Amino acid sequence: MKTKILLDEEEMPKRWYNVAADLLTPLDPPLHPQTGEPLKPEDLEMIFPKGLIRQEMSTERWIDIPDEVREILRLWRPTPLFRAHRLEEHLKTPARIYYKYEGVSPAGSHKPNTAVPQAYYNMKEGVERIATETGAGQWGSALSMATCLFDIQCRVYMVRASFDQKPYRKSIMQVWGAECVASPSELTNAGRMILKDHPHTGGSLGIAISEAVEDAATHENTNYALGSVLNHVLLHQTVEGLELQKQMAMVEDYPDVIYGCVGGGSNFPGMVFPYVPEKLKEKKEIRMVACEPSACPTLTKGLFTYDFGDTARLTPLLKMYTLGHDFIPPSIHAGGLRYHGDAPLLCNLVHDRVIEAQSFHQNEVFKAAVTFARTEGILPAPEASHALKPAIDDAIACKKTGEEKTIVISLSGHGHFDLSSYDAYFAGNLVDYEYPEELVKQSLANVPKF
Amino acid sequence: MKTKILLDEEEMPKRWYNVAADLLTPLDPPLHPQTGEPLKPEDLEMIFPKGLIRQEMSTERWIDIPDEVREILRLWRPTPLFRAHRLEEHLKTPARIYYKYEGVSPAGSHKPNTAVPQAYYNMKEGVERIATETGAGQWGSALSMATCLFDIQCRVYMVRASFDQKPYRKSIMQVWGAECVASPSELTNAGRMILKDHPHTGGSLGIAISEAVEDAATHENTNYALGSVLNHVLLHQTVEGLELQKQMAMVEDYPDVIYGCVGGGSNFPGMVFPYVPEKLKEKKEIRMVACEPSACPTLTKGLFTYDFGDTARLTPLLKMYTLGHDFIPPSIHAGGLRYHGDAPLLCNLVHDRVIEAQSFHQNEVFKAAVTFARTEGILPAPEASHALKPAIDDAIACKKTGEEKTIVISLSGHGHFDLSSYDAYFAGNLVDYEYPEELVKQSLANVPKF
Repeated sequence: MKTKILLDEEEMPKRWYNVAADLLTPLDPPLHPQTGEPLKPEDLEMIFPKGLIRQEMSTERWIDIPDEVREILRLWRPTPLFRAHRLEEHLKTPARIYYKYEGVSPAGSHKPNTAVPQAYYNMKEGVERIATETGAGQWGSALSMATCLFDIQCRVYMVRASFDQKPYRKSIMQVWGAECVASPSELTNAGRMILKDHPHTGGSLGIAISEAVEDAATHENTNYALGSVLNHVLLHQTVEGLELQKQMAMVEDYPDVIYGCVGGGSNFPGMVFPYVPEKLKEKKEIRMVACEPSACPTLTKGLFTYDFGDTARLTPLLKMYTLGHDFIPPSIHAGGLRYHGDAPLLCNLVHDRVIEAQSFHQNEVFKAAVTFARTEGILPAPEASHALKPAIDDAIACKKTGEEKTIVISLSGHGHFDLSSYDAYFAGNLVDYEYPEELVKQSLANVPKF
Repeated sequence: MKTKILLDEEEMPKRWYNVAADLLTPLDPPLHPQTGEPLKPEDLEMIFPKGLIRQEMSTERWIDIPDEVREILRLWRPTPLFRAHRLEEHLKTPARIYYKYEGVSPAGSHKPNTAVPQAYYNMKEGVERIATETGAGQWGSALSMATCLFDIQCRVYMVRASFDQKPYRKSIMQVWGAECVASPSELTNAGRMILKDHPHTGGSLGIAISEAVEDAATHENTNYALGSVLNHVLLHQTVEGLELQKQMAMVEDYPDVIYGCVGGGSNFPGMVFPYVPEKLKEKKEIRMVACEPSACPTLTKGLFTYDFGDTARLTPLLKMYTLGHDFIPPSIHAGGLRYHGDAPLLCNLVHDRVIEAQSFHQNEVFKAAVTFARTEGILPAPEASHALKPAIDDAIACKKTGEEKTIVISLSGHGHFDLSSYDAYFAGNLVDYEYPEELVKQSLANVPKF
């Protein structure tokens, strides 16, 4: 029985799948942050290229992947699907465990799947510079690589807490020719305002987004790019799930359940969205479980409503599960996935109960990560490990029931830049934060009412 | 034209190739460090399992790879061969550039290719604990992973200069359950002796070897393991070259030249040894170029003679190119590959002019690494980048001659744990050390005379 289920690069998808064509409830439109009116494509043109805006608004089921994008994706795609023989043996489970591993990209995660097309569409429209934000650094690294390959300048606003914890994220962005600055910074009004009131803040993704959006809006020939949340980002990530379908067919198996981590939403939606029509139309019995940290429990504890995507209220209002746009997870949280909201497409499907959500504490997540590393070899990213925890629990439960369940894990990246978090785990320094109820109540009070 | 030339895991080699069967000059035997007499197998039994000693002494051309070893190698093997389309375009060269990438292993380098069989043969003979040394950390990481998979305890003596520079190497070894200590340490006589005279030393590979060998010899049921130099190590690495031969045949091409980096010798010999009989017997025109740092120019400036493998003169004497067993390269050198000697099998073939050697300065090496990362995406390890420098020069030279040369690079690992060295390069802090002639003269004076 094989360990790696590989596809030839000619079998890489030629089209992205757009789940907007198959929703049970139509997607609520994004609203203009000042007027509260539905957003028009031209409202986005100040910071996005038209090619991406078209995808953002599209309800076409299939969208062609440009050849120039596929040429670059070939550097690491299709990604391998592994059968976790050694983990299964260790757990003594009758379940079949698979993981699709996105850590083989040069940036070490799934993020280049969308960074490359985003850089491409910007290049096509003559954009010479892109500003973005990054939390743990996966997205900033991916965009640095992608912009480098299309000869575009790039500035990354990195959440200061991570910037200080993970100095080598800045270094790798520099190798790819990008500039990485700690956020909040003195380079934007948004950053300066926060620093005035909170000079020692560790920052947040919401603040970093505000800075990057302002940078794009105020610099010549500069656009903004986002690594999760938006429809076109999730669209680009569906290469994962489309490959997974082919790979599962090669071994004549079908997922009973797919686990993936969710921060703002990109890897997990990319892996499961191609299964949505199979569940809804072909009535396949498949569970899709979004896994999030208990310290930032957006899908499991958030409100389903319109909210801003950033702290400074610069972005459009999105209909999503949210903890409030000024929610900042406790700084002790080491596992990433800190965004206050989630992708509207994902939230729509969670609200319609097509997709489930669960939350997990960080110590149990790191424990699962170590079990995985000691059986399968690969050192998983803390984010990705949120999916390992329930997958391992599920496989253990199968021991009692005897069920030969097919469990698929979306392993979104490696943890080579997250070893300080592993150190903190081994040193016993990670606190399992209870659900920050008071914090959420405060931040939810600031969500705009409609 | 494809980017990745992939082999199915069923096509992974089933036998290792032993170049000892095809040498022009028979290998000079290792000598006992006290008596100076040729070593007997039983002399090695205190620190090595019999299975590995048999391989060390063997002149059989082919040696079977145990199924249990192949089961683990499947986790990342066969490794991909890439056609460097984007680097070729960037250089505007008519040359065809390929690179075989060993960074896809969970440890990030080629080192697990031998760590896994070494752990396996120790496990088969009931060994419960292994001691080893590591320089930059690639080998220590690989052995930590391999011993973990076979449930063997592991202690790694890591050269202090690297231990301090690369704290996350220790962390990743911990994830795989191993213990990593800075060398020289207070845990061995060899370490304590050095610390007494040089309390602030950054250590060296020669010192760390002394400590690990002493640890193995003085602890119950503990063996020693080495990640380069020895015959069985090079044997295990031939999976690389055997795969490369199949992959080149798939695209109906043949290497005019193969470049690979050399420290003590393991990745480069593994890649090129299977081509030795093709060159010698089939008279194929192929150049094999060992690439080493100018700061530790063993093959290009060393003496071809018997010398100790370690500083404390505990190891057998090996016939090799050496800079003297107490040579320590300048601490400013950031690129790894710091061993004073080289693998006897490799030295034999260099001495017989079957294989060539060249040395390179670190700034030109890092420059080549950045060019590679910015075109092919992958961030190469500084060690591996020693092979990129001459390959790029060669490809540029082809522009003038118009030659459609086939250039193959052995890309032995990624540089995710080496970003402090990249930082030093960008900051202009790397000095191109001239050949340390006086230093070498001193250390060569201590080489034993026969």
